[in-house]
Amino acid sequence: MARYDFASDNTAGAAPEAMAALVDANTGFQSGYGTDEITVRAADHVRALLDVDADVRFVASGTASNSVALAALCRPFEAVLAHEHAHVCTDETGAPGLFGHGLGLIGLPGGSGKLDLGALERALDAPDVSHRQSPAALSLTNATEYGTTYTVLELERLIAAAKARGLGVHLDGARLANAAASGFDVKAISSLGVDILVVGGTKAGMPPTEAVVLLDPKLSRRFDARLKQSGQLPSKGRFFSAPWIGMLESGAWLERARHANAMATRLAALTPFPVRHPVQANAVFVDMDEAALTRLGEKGWFVYRFTDGTVRFMCSWATTAEAVDEIGAALKAI
Amino acid sequence: MARYDFASDNTAGAAPEAMAALVDANTGFQSGYGTDEITVRAADHVRALLDVDADVRFVASGTASNSVALAALCRPFEAVLAHEHAHVCTDETGAPGLFGHGLGLIGLPGGSGKLDLGALERALDAPDVSHRQSPAALSLTNATEYGTTYTVLELERLIAAAKARGLGVHLDGARLANAAASGFDVKAISSLGVDILVVGGTKAGMPPTEAVVLLDPKLSRRFDARLKQSGQLPSKGRFFSAPWIGMLESGAWLERARHANAMATRLAALTPFPVRHPVQANAVFVDMDEAALTRLGEKGWFVYRFTDGTVRFMCSWATTAEAVDEIGAALKAI
Amino acid sequence: MARYDFASDNTAGAAPEAMAALVDANTGFQSGYGTDEITVRAADHVRALLDVDADVRFVASGTASNSVALAALCRPFEAVLAHEHAHVCTDETGAPGLFGHGLGLIGLPGGSGKLDLGALERALDAPDVSHRQSPAALSLTNATEYGTTYTVLELERLIAAAKARGLGVHLDGARLANAAASGFDVKAISSLGVDILVVGGTKAGMPPTEAVVLLDPKLSRRFDARLKQSGQLPSKGRFFSAPWIGMLESGAWLERARHANAMATRLAALTPFPVRHPVQANAVFVDMDEAALTRLGEKGWFVYRFTDGTVRFMCSWATTAEAVDEIGAALKAI
Amino acid sequence: MARYDFASDNTAGAAPEAMAALVDANTGFQSGYGTDEITVRAADHVRALLDVDADVRFVASGTASNSVALAALCRPFEAVLAHEHAHVCTDETGAPGLFGHGLGLIGLPGGSGKLDLGALERALDAPDVSHRQSPAALSLTNATEYGTTYTVLELERLIAAAKARGLGVHLDGARLANAAASGFDVKAISSLGVDILVVGGTKAGMPPTEAVVLLDPKLSRRFDARLKQSGQLPSKGRFFSAPWIGMLESGAWLERARHANAMATRLAALTPFPVRHPVQANAVFVDMDEAALTRLGEKGWFVYRFTDGTVRFMCSWATTAEAVDEIGAALKAI
Repeated sequence: MARYDFASDNTAGAAPEAMAALVDANTGFQSGYGTDEITVRAADHVRALLDVDADVRFVASGTASNSVALAALCRPFEAVLAHEHAHVCTDETGAPGLFGHGLGLIGLPGGSGKLDLGALERALDAPDVSHRQSPAALSLTNATEYGTTYTVLELERLIAAAKARGLGVHLDGARLANAAASGFDVKAISSLGVDILVVGGTKAGMPPTEAVVLLDPKLSRRFDARLKQSGQLPSKGRFFSAPWIGMLESGAWLERARHANAMATRLAALTPFPVRHPVQANAVFVDMDEAALTRLGEKGWFVYRFTDGTVRFMCSWATTAEAVDEIGAALKAI
Repeated sequence: MARYDFASDNTAGAAPEAMAALVDANTGFQSGYGTDEITVRAADHVRALLDVDADVRFVASGTASNSVALAALCRPFEAVLAHEHAHVCTDETGAPGLFGHGLGLIGLPGGSGKLDLGALERALDAPDVSHRQSPAALSLTNATEYGTTYTVLELERLIAAAKARGLGVHLDGARLANAAASGFDVKAISSLGVDILVVGGTKAGMPPTEAVVLLDPKLSRRFDARLKQSGQLPSKGRFFSAPWIGMLESGAWLERARHANAMATRLAALTPFPVRHPVQANAVFVDMDEAALTRLGEKGWFVYRFTDGTVRFMCSWATTAEAVDEIGAALKAI
Repeated sequence: MARYDFASDNTAGAAPEAMAALVDANTGFQSGYGTDEITVRAADHVRALLDVDADVRFVASGTASNSVALAALCRPFEAVLAHEHAHVCTDETGAPGLFGHGLGLIGLPGGSGKLDLGALERALDAPDVSHRQSPAALSLTNATEYGTTYTVLELERLIAAAKARGLGVHLDGARLANAAASGFDVKAISSLGVDILVVGGTKAGMPPTEAVVLLDPKLSRRFDARLKQSGQLPSKGRFFSAPWIGMLESGAWLERARHANAMATRLAALTPFPVRHPVQANAVFVDMDEAALTRLGEKGWFVYRFTDGTVRFMCSWATTAEAVDEIGAALKAI
Repeated sequence: MARYDFASDNTAGAAPEAMAALVDANTGFQSGYGTDEITVRAADHVRALLDVDADVRFVASGTASNSVALAALCRPFEAVLAHEHAHVCTDETGAPGLFGHGLGLIGLPGGSGKLDLGALERALDAPDVSHRQSPAALSLTNATEYGTTYTVLELERLIAAAKARGLGVHLDGARLANAAASGFDVKAISSLGVDILVVGGTKAGMPPTEAVVLLDPKLSRRFDARLKQSGQLPSKGRFFSAPWIGMLESGAWLERARHANAMATRLAALTPFPVRHPVQANAVFVDMDEAALTRLGEKGWFVYRFTDGTVRFMCSWATTAEAVDEIGAALKAI
């Protein structure tokens, strides 16, 4: 039977802190659609984490939360600028186009998943003509798809360029916990000019849940109606908010990410295959030919070949040092 | 503090059987996006419940599942026929139009939430002209919005009329458990001509989850891509499938609904306000003027005035006989 | 062979003034997509007609122009308030939902096609809840679907109510020429608070063309991109703008509408069937049973039974007094 | 004042044959929405041109007609394969995404605008996974964006590859007349497996009009409703169909294209700048640096730099040999 330990950071279950909070929250009656007191408390925790005064919503799906966010920033005849390998560009079956009603995605280059400032500036300087979808939003991801992290300064420069042309800014934080564990100051986000932020719960060790943070208060008007129409205003809201209480109150959100990052570092040290991108979060990308990947599969380990041709090993809160050593040994044996 | 016991059947948490299964499923690594073994087992249980051989998917949202289902049956320049008070018409912020890209909804009359066969036939007989959205799908709900249930024979007649004109058929089973507990044979659905069925988990006492059953095998092609684009293909699929194992293996899905229905019957017997619709499932609708509703609110009970002007009291798996008696006394005291 | 003289005001061809201008414009090379000098001149004429300083675009389709206008005022999870028999509600196959990506239409009552102020106010006062599409725009039509016209004062009251709640306002002027010919002062529109106006060319006696007037300058940003994505930014723009020069320079836009209105008045005086709505523009609506309508058809005259059950006779710039007398005689003979 | 003779083949007006037919058609009353006898006659002419028995519709916009065609072949969670420089990919402001509700476009390479068969096969062989929009349709263009033409054999191979995987096929024939004038047999299209064809009228010398040909009869059901919702079912249909009668009855459709092609050949022979793509239709693409382009502009000639960096000179039915010689001299003088 295949082992999925390193296939993704969503193959793990939920961390004990998240589950305990879920079970705790499962008592009594609560008002629906995110108006319950558990959701209010969870939102307070997210605001404290980020040191912001902003509306927070908890939704079931990362794909939907990012797409709804982009739809809030960009009209259908406009486009979103994003790294060409960003999740919204490569792995969401065109969800931004569905929720955004045909909005365009313009993929830009950049090493190891980090958007190149020069490429961004060229895209921003392209003439605003009616026969093309001109950019209205910038979408950034931290940690990136390639397990690297932006510094606050790097984000500042990219966002400043976008803001100078009037664009809105979305930050996909599906792995924000891993970036935070790598030293990124999440309290700095509010002053960067990000308009809408999605903080990942699922990959951080929770049951499926993402926190949508409306840093631009103008986005709040009828945002619940937007979520409802998008199938992302859950009636039993506590099931998507309670895990946040468990993870944030205990500090597990950060600690569990620190563990995941450490496991990636450990794996990077063990693998005999060349590591292709800096290991700054919870992923290791290596050069590995098809024959080697097949042999790894035969040894029972399932991992993915990625968009850039490398093979990806993801670590999560649940990855054990033993498993890292086991797959390290398997890699050496190939 | 307001009490939400009767505000909806989604103000309760999850039943113990569902939570236990969720906790049980939370071990080890599992492949993503509904390919895990827990999801496979849960799908088997749903198939056994319905006695069908059909693809089953588990999704987070009832709004989205119904809307995705309608989008699968109806092109944007076509329309869905539904009861004018059906959830898809009145309570989903136009979600069918978003997921269905502008598809139309044609609301039809019928007593106590049940579609009138004559009204359906007239709508089906309307000329198929290019300046209107002509019907391509029929959407039915069992149990209905008004706590009544269709018999198999009633559904047969409505569906036969729709099928005779080539329409697809969607059954919204958000409260199918309550219909089943009221005597509706869910194993009969497969022979009725329903193309796509949503079986409600959330209102049946689970954490947020709905089962989408593709009774027409032609709908299966790329359905996962459809779900993914719609933000409804969860990466950690077990969290939406495991509750079904707990509820179906134990028989709690039906038993818990039986309890909810019994509580509604108990409440109907207690209320001094005229009951407006037959109490066949877990809801009681009464005539109550605004002053009385206000006084009830002052006594701490939150309930909704509904689309037809009546006031709705919903019971769920978690409703206690004590609470029913309490609110019954409050109603008498008004 | 059937005669379509009274079937609609789009069964006529184009008036000589429009055709002459079209032929005149058909010389030499012109830059594309509405940047040509003919389009600039035509836009000046429309601005002069309305006494406004506003961007004007010429598009091929009335359906599309109204739908694009509504999409500019209303987000997909919001709704447009309109008369329940307005063209956008009844005759456009859900085009507002396609171009507006699922936006809702809320039909409101009102006698003879004119929106009832009380009904509008009630709709505006409905609670702004997340499970329904709350109104973001008001769509009005002058002259109305039933051949009646709003006075400036009536529009003022309706628009003031909408503006007080922050709604945008769209005016469908498919038959604005007929309203103008009936005494409505089109120069008053700019001070009424209309944000986007569609002035009809097609029904006013031109080849297919409508003028979209952006009275709210905030709508201008990237409006050409919006039109282009909507298939409404014609490359050979002169073919949609030139007719306006011909019709406005000569005064034919108003004169031809006056003729059409006069023909309707003449017909109303002749028909033995009860006239159901005030004849203020170019339409006559009468009570006529199915047998009588069939007999009229057998005499060669094709007309439509309308949404409210009456039978509609439309007059246009091309309707002759002889034809009116002929059909009048036919009606008497039935 | 700038001269637009070579800026595009839509900067010219309409050919005399088209205008004469338009004027001829402008008499009497006609039924609406494409049911008129002029439209019926024009459709017969298009069917005869292509030697097919297929439904034909006449619409105002090339952008909309191509987008509606793709929407008819491809669901929102699927993708269209097209040349990466095809008009639908580069110049339509995301219209396929709006009319197709979020469908994806996958751009493929190929020399001089012609899709590379190997690239197509690789795209077709990509795994059909739920997290990407997998191809459902192939869109081809003849003549291509770069003034080259496919042979029947070349199209056969591309289409066979697509059909073998069950894709639908769209042919954008905005410049089909130029391909025909270059030797492409338009009567061969029906046996190639094309499902939906757009024959260009606008660039062939007509007022704005395109003919949509439904070669797959299954596409016909409710296609008029699809067009109506898309703002492409004109009420005064004759204005979009009559020009086809004039151009096809007289043979001008082909003859005018022959002239345009000949002018391109003449220009290619005159230009001192390296011609970059084979001149097989009505376009010449040359290598020209920015300074030279600026000088040409200063001499009064407006032309575009194209997606691949070359400068494009388009000829049309209206291009005169004198103008070719003039611009040839200007080019030499730079």
